[in-house]
Amino acid sequence: VRPVDEGRAAGRVAAVFEDFKKTRGATAVPNFWRVLATNPDLLELVWSNVKRLMNPECVGRTSKLDPVTREAIALAVSATNGCAYCTNSHTAALKKLGADEETVAEILGIASLFNMTNALADGFQVVPDVKAEW
Amino acid sequence: VRPVDEGRAAGRVAAVFEDFKKTRGATAVPNFWRVLATNPDLLELVWSNVKRLMNPECVGRTSKLDPVTREAIALAVSATNGCAYCTNSHTAALKKLGADEETVAEILGIASLFNMTNALADGFQVVPDVKAEW
Amino acid sequence: VRPVDEGRAAGRVAAVFEDFKKTRGATAVPNFWRVLATNPDLLELVWSNVKRLMNPECVGRTSKLDPVTREAIALAVSATNGCAYCTNSHTAALKKLGADEETVAEILGIASLFNMTNALADGFQVVPDVKAEW
Amino acid sequence: VRPVDEGRAAGRVAAVFEDFKKTRGATAVPNFWRVLATNPDLLELVWSNVKRLMNPECVGRTSKLDPVTREAIALAVSATNGCAYCTNSHTAALKKLGADEETVAEILGIASLFNMTNALADGFQVVPDVKAEW
Amino acid sequence: VRPVDEGRAAGRVAAVFEDFKKTRGATAVPNFWRVLATNPDLLELVWSNVKRLMNPECVGRTSKLDPVTREAIALAVSATNGCAYCTNSHTAALKKLGADEETVAEILGIASLFNMTNALADGFQVVPDVKAEW
Amino acid sequence: VRPVDEGRAAGRVAAVFEDFKKTRGATAVPNFWRVLATNPDLLELVWSNVKRLMNPECVGRTSKLDPVTREAIALAVSATNGCAYCTNSHTAALKKLGADEETVAEILGIASLFNMTNALADGFQVVPDVKAEW
Repeated sequence: VRPVDEGRAAGRVAAVFEDFKKTRGATAVPNFWRVLATNPDLLELVWSNVKRLMNPECVGRTSKLDPVTREAIALAVSATNGCAYCTNSHTAALKKLGADEETVAEILGIASLFNMTNALADGFQVVPDVKAEW
Repeated sequence: VRPVDEGRAAGRVAAVFEDFKKTRGATAVPNFWRVLATNPDLLELVWSNVKRLMNPECVGRTSKLDPVTREAIALAVSATNGCAYCTNSHTAALKKLGADEETVAEILGIASLFNMTNALADGFQVVPDVKAEW
Repeated sequence: VRPVDEGRAAGRVAAVFEDFKKTRGATAVPNFWRVLATNPDLLELVWSNVKRLMNPECVGRTSKLDPVTREAIALAVSATNGCAYCTNSHTAALKKLGADEETVAEILGIASLFNMTNALADGFQVVPDVKAEW
Repeated sequence: VRPVDEGRAAGRVAAVFEDFKKTRGATAVPNFWRVLATNPDLLELVWSNVKRLMNPECVGRTSKLDPVTREAIALAVSATNGCAYCTNSHTAALKKLGADEETVAEILGIASLFNMTNALADGFQVVPDVKAEW
Repeated sequence: VRPVDEGRAAGRVAAVFEDFKKTRGATAVPNFWRVLATNPDLLELVWSNVKRLMNPECVGRTSKLDPVTREAIALAVSATNGCAYCTNSHTAALKKLGADEETVAEILGIASLFNMTNALADGFQVVPDVKAEW
Repeated sequence: VRPVDEGRAAGRVAAVFEDFKKTRGATAVPNFWRVLATNPDLLELVWSNVKRLMNPECVGRTSKLDPVTREAIALAVSATNGCAYCTNSHTAALKKLGADEETVAEILGIASLFNMTNALADGFQVVPDVKAEW
């Protein structure tokens, strides 16, 4: 699947590309969005999801989580799924938000810890506590 | 695998059980730790990991993330892995830290969003941007 | 693990390689099958599985699903698991069956959507409906 | 997280509940949507995604895949992720669309096969074929 | 999907059921095989795979791994995937082979450790060593 | 995240690097440990886990599993998670322990088989047997 060049984008695709660059203060559209553009419906759907949850202030919503926490969740999920493109993007996003390498490493450390405990809880078939106190 | 009763714990197992209750301000030891106790080495190993990363102040460390962020990462990983016991525990932990249901739902919303984008990035085989701007 | 060259294949390995090429109308054996050939038993086992389920007409079976649907399932699973080689293969197979880029993108869109809802259902620990109506 | 009762739903939540029932011809709202309702933004977001991709005719779109194929993808992803609620829902949806048990089993058989081949391709670290022919 | 009762099994299904009981020295057929029986082709396929890899001596093959190691791999994969039925089955199988609870816990400990390091290697996007020495 | 050069390592990082090389009889520190070194706490934590479970004799413990079985579990988990760096490392480790390519392939064959059966057990929503006999 070949990415759509920014110069060749038109209509709904061009509109999402513009909105992405304005919302993120970016000068170019990353490959992820350019491949989604092969299906304009999908591009609109995914971008509206990401904008709503990751840039809530742009759609008139307020979030109970700060931007670093939101990106930390994104990185934790991406590391858990082993998605190379995504871990790269979210590491870059965290650094842009001011997180240093030690913070990124702490996020990955916590994410990896719970991949360990998840495998243990599932492996030992632990039954729920009547009243969780953890 | 049968969980070890608190009353029958001795030696290293009893020591971890005590430390867990003191560190967490808990009155009982959850099933997760009681099944790990079937292998005292493993119990010590996992508890030292969890204590160090989730209760860093108890081992003289400082964290760059606040407790809600750390639990948010734990919940995001657990939901991604579909670990029932773990999502239950971390939801309970978040509520204990003062997070309301809307916050828990926002964490799960963001985690689920990146499960979506991870599958897309992997499915479209997106190649890394020369300079990630996402 | 080094792939087995077609020219050096003999016995059972050569037989599977021939059968693969005949069944698929291919002129070369992909790397996947060439690495499996390091263990002839495994090669036979996996090929017999794939042939039976993906080319059922070649073993006298009928399928209730058409070839595009079968490949769509293969691609959806591969994207969910983040297997790069596999998403590449199944995208190629879909195009060979006549699917255009928009169709591939729709398959990936649906697959990614259910990675989202799966994380939500697991994260919210949704209990089964007495009578599912979804 | 407690599901929102239909009788207590108001405003945007009630609107999505109504739209769900009308779109699906259902008489009750499944637990999945009732727990999402604890965060109305998330409910709207997920429902708009599902409606757009799974009931495209309701939003003036056309799909290149038939409804059984779309549900087959949903079931394959859910089985791969091990999401109990989801496999249950999509099995029910497939039966409602007329798929018999043998078809459901064929979908699961194909999905499981590619979980096998994915682990093999990743485990053997297979490098891409210059020209995929699979 | 309803499991097929042993009493109602006929033809190919009955043949696999008999072969399973003889091979395993079992007096009843577990639910896993009884649900697969809804699609006799799938039942035969999966059983022939399991028999060949887990009971190789019954098909005239030799294995380079001992039975406990083979079940340890099965349990490690099942814990990683969070498959409840499977972790239960493989724990039972290990105990039948003479493994005690401490051994089961060690297997789960090692499996969980590599779920941790996998998330770290993927999260840090570690590039391959020219010459792996780990 | 940039790996820490061995020449620039100091204090706790240098100590772990030395211990790694001594324990493993290695002449260089792999990239995995060099990226963890960006967070010395995390480096110590992960190394102490790996050493305890994979080189138990170095910490005065005994293992109920032999070294090949322990690496087989590591490889099975890594193939299941699709972690490229990790499958590469553990394949190398197995060869160093004397395992030939056929053995590696058998391990991957068994791991892949249970990725298949896991998806089937989850997909068919198999309920536990009263008395597992598998």
